[in-house]
Amino acid sequence: MSENHEHHYTDDVQSHLQQVQSLLGKHALVETLVRKQEMPRAERHELVESLLHKRHLVELQTKLDELHPADIAYILEALPIEQRLLVWDMVKADRDGDILIEVSDAVRESLIATMSREELREAAEQLDTDEIADLAPDLPQAVMRDVFKSLSVEEREQLRAAMTYPEDSVGALMDFDMVTIREDVTLEVVSRYLRRFDELPDHTDQLFVIDRNDRFIGVLALHRLLVNEPETDVARLVHHETITLHPDDKAEQAAQAFERYDLVSAPVVDEDGKLVGRVTVNTVVDFIRSESESELLSQAGLREEEDIFASVWKSAQNRWLWLALNLCTAFFASRVIGSFEGTIEKFVALATLMPIVAGIAGNSGNQTTTIIIRSLALGQITHSNARHLLVKELAISALNGVVWGGVAGLFAYVLYHNITLSLVMTSAMLLNLLLGAVVGMFVPLTMQKLGRDPAIGSSVLLTAITDSGGFFIFLGLATIFLIH
Amino acid sequence: MSENHEHHYTDDVQSHLQQVQSLLGKHALVETLVRKQEMPRAERHELVESLLHKRHLVELQTKLDELHPADIAYILEALPIEQRLLVWDMVKADRDGDILIEVSDAVRESLIATMSREELREAAEQLDTDEIADLAPDLPQAVMRDVFKSLSVEEREQLRAAMTYPEDSVGALMDFDMVTIREDVTLEVVSRYLRRFDELPDHTDQLFVIDRNDRFIGVLALHRLLVNEPETDVARLVHHETITLHPDDKAEQAAQAFERYDLVSAPVVDEDGKLVGRVTVNTVVDFIRSESESELLSQAGLREEEDIFASVWKSAQNRWLWLALNLCTAFFASRVIGSFEGTIEKFVALATLMPIVAGIAGNSGNQTTTIIIRSLALGQITHSNARHLLVKELAISALNGVVWGGVAGLFAYVLYHNITLSLVMTSAMLLNLLLGAVVGMFVPLTMQKLGRDPAIGSSVLLTAITDSGGFFIFLGLATIFLIH
Repeated sequence: MSENHEHHYTDDVQSHLQQVQSLLGKHALVETLVRKQEMPRAERHELVESLLHKRHLVELQTKLDELHPADIAYILEALPIEQRLLVWDMVKADRDGDILIEVSDAVRESLIATMSREELREAAEQLDTDEIADLAPDLPQAVMRDVFKSLSVEEREQLRAAMTYPEDSVGALMDFDMVTIREDVTLEVVSRYLRRFDELPDHTDQLFVIDRNDRFIGVLALHRLLVNEPETDVARLVHHETITLHPDDKAEQAAQAFERYDLVSAPVVDEDGKLVGRVTVNTVVDFIRSESESELLSQAGLREEEDIFASVWKSAQNRWLWLALNLCTAFFASRVIGSFEGTIEKFVALATLMPIVAGIAGNSGNQTTTIIIRSLALGQITHSNARHLLVKELAISALNGVVWGGVAGLFAYVLYHNITLSLVMTSAMLLNLLLGAVVGMFVPLTMQKLGRDPAIGSSVLLTAITDSGGFFIFLGLATIFLIH
Repeated sequence: MSENHEHHYTDDVQSHLQQVQSLLGKHALVETLVRKQEMPRAERHELVESLLHKRHLVELQTKLDELHPADIAYILEALPIEQRLLVWDMVKADRDGDILIEVSDAVRESLIATMSREELREAAEQLDTDEIADLAPDLPQAVMRDVFKSLSVEEREQLRAAMTYPEDSVGALMDFDMVTIREDVTLEVVSRYLRRFDELPDHTDQLFVIDRNDRFIGVLALHRLLVNEPETDVARLVHHETITLHPDDKAEQAAQAFERYDLVSAPVVDEDGKLVGRVTVNTVVDFIRSESESELLSQAGLREEEDIFASVWKSAQNRWLWLALNLCTAFFASRVIGSFEGTIEKFVALATLMPIVAGIAGNSGNQTTTIIIRSLALGQITHSNARHLLVKELAISALNGVVWGGVAGLFAYVLYHNITLSLVMTSAMLLNLLLGAVVGMFVPLTMQKLGRDPAIGSSVLLTAITDSGGFFIFLGLATIFLIH
């Protein structure tokens, strides 16, 4: 339900932020002055409040009123919590809904926490049913009950439908803002019908053609409506072989279809062939962006998008699972080293060299994992080429083992003048790089087979194995060949 | 220049791939049979060639002809090099251009390498000027000269313009497929004008209103054309305060504008106010996808998208810089440990515990870096909140240091029953986690200040410091408190 706000190009959004920050800064300065007691309180208050304080808040209010909801969302996300709530209080209540839809989950939580049941109900009622469904998990049950009561029968049906689909399905991306027409009319009739609208739904690039029973027949591109003569029949121009999505399809597949076929909108059709909704490119863009972001975050073990101004306690919780997991694997690796304490005691150079063996194989295995995860996401890995890929990754690792293992062996020789140590170093590097390639390939493939997202957790498992494996291989070889 | 191919939903693309692979598999089987000499060659050849071989190739040809260029591109990327080239040879020459535009850079290179100058010229001539500009870096100079000669004066101008803009600018995303109108006419006149087109350019959701001197005045949304009466003047409906891009703007800013304001197309206007092109959402989607991919790849030190079927040698080169860099930092860390050999000799438990200190701080610092890089990309970090963020990250690390450092200290105590060692462990963890937070914050901030992409190389620098720093802090403290 984005309003038709008039605004300039987005470069402004950072200058908007700076203006708001500077107005808030002045406001804070004034507040501080007011709180200082060196001058009679009343006097200062009068002086300041009248001259500055109000003026800045009024200026801020004006500024906020002319901003697009998406820009206000951006500014709210970039402000520390007290300033954020001040700005949030100043936003006109009739825009609350649109802004809540735009902010990130973490920031939305901080805003909703300050709102009364009544305010939340009003905010939700400004939204379309598909948007209410997006907001629903964050709203108190009582509010949802109120909202539900205020909807029409059709809207309740839509909301119920939208809320049943899992987050990563087409059903969760879909909206219900469609213009539908019949096949047995002329373009002239369609044009007259459209002129009865004040505004067409956003992203209407095609009209959906349905029969008497709401069954989807095809689409009529607006372009065809425009370039053809008014007396032409819709039936002659309707496009039957169009892309249709199913509400249970994976959202990622829909995103790939939009990307591949350059779509602006696509119909969503249920198993009975009924048109139930549509997906538009703006939702797909948001989905692609949030997917790639959560992938980047999950690679660093951040479970969710973090509000940069969340409390220390909350942020720490977001990061703990990862650190705890890594600590466990580090303890295990430490025990592997511990079992070779006797060897290290006799040959302390081993302690200085062992992190090299473990580290490089981790880096190299991570490269393999990244390539495999990417190819899996694109569906490029099939039975017939998986073996080909494994052979290739092993060959690369063997090459790397000879080259970089050789360099590392030379490094060891220069330092310790021991040719056996140098050979142990090179062999351990080679073996651990091969181990990294095998593990880097099979961990994501296995996760995919088990139905889990290979982008999450592959790296911690990989590093656990290349670390412990590296220490074991290097210290093991050293025990055999160096210690008599 | 995507054709109006009729096709079903993309779920098919994987089944398309499987069909093609199975046809190719049969083909390969036949070839192998033919090559085997157990039967008189001519006989086998006749038998096989007539019965199977040709039939499969014909089937394959039919299959390829009905696929969308983007789907063929997808299939080419998922095939090993010999099969890829076989399929490429079978694609109708008049679709070469569209397909070359769709494949990834690495695969494009492998296809272009097999094409003659003549074939390349023909492929390029099928494309729009903005698409030729995308292809230009991969084409031999002689081909580009031929192509240039075949263009009209206006197209040459466009091509020259498109090629001058850097890859990450709006100019590189823009196309020239615009419908422009004047302000002083009625909608009726505009409709008549549009009916003269056979087809409107893809993604035409608005018409661009210009004056006599090509200066941009505003836009007329197609929706307004449809919902208003034909006798209305364009001037009454034109939207002046629309988002306009500049060819030198960063592509990423344009992408954010599209995402924020849910755009389908946006005008590109030069410094004289002249309309020079437009950017459409499909280009933006491709840009967002490729940006996020290159960010994921670069985090694993892959310099570029890798053709999964590239030669071992080529793939290895793509990965070497990263491994070499990591090897250097590992050597440095190794020397840090080396300088404490005396300490380790006296207390070998240190060797088993030191990787824990280094590793966990690396993980934690990486979380900080990820959050900072993300916030930098969104422009959320300003002077006024950078200090706030540093304090917060330090607080989180201190908390983590106490909690996980405490756990690690306990682990050390359980193993070695030495309270001093246990305290050294906990203190080293705490200090190195704090170091990780400071470095994890300042590395990306500094890179941003130096005008470099903070997503590239931040992690290798971070790990270098948390590794060497961790060994130094832990072994240093141990030398002071444990060795007398």
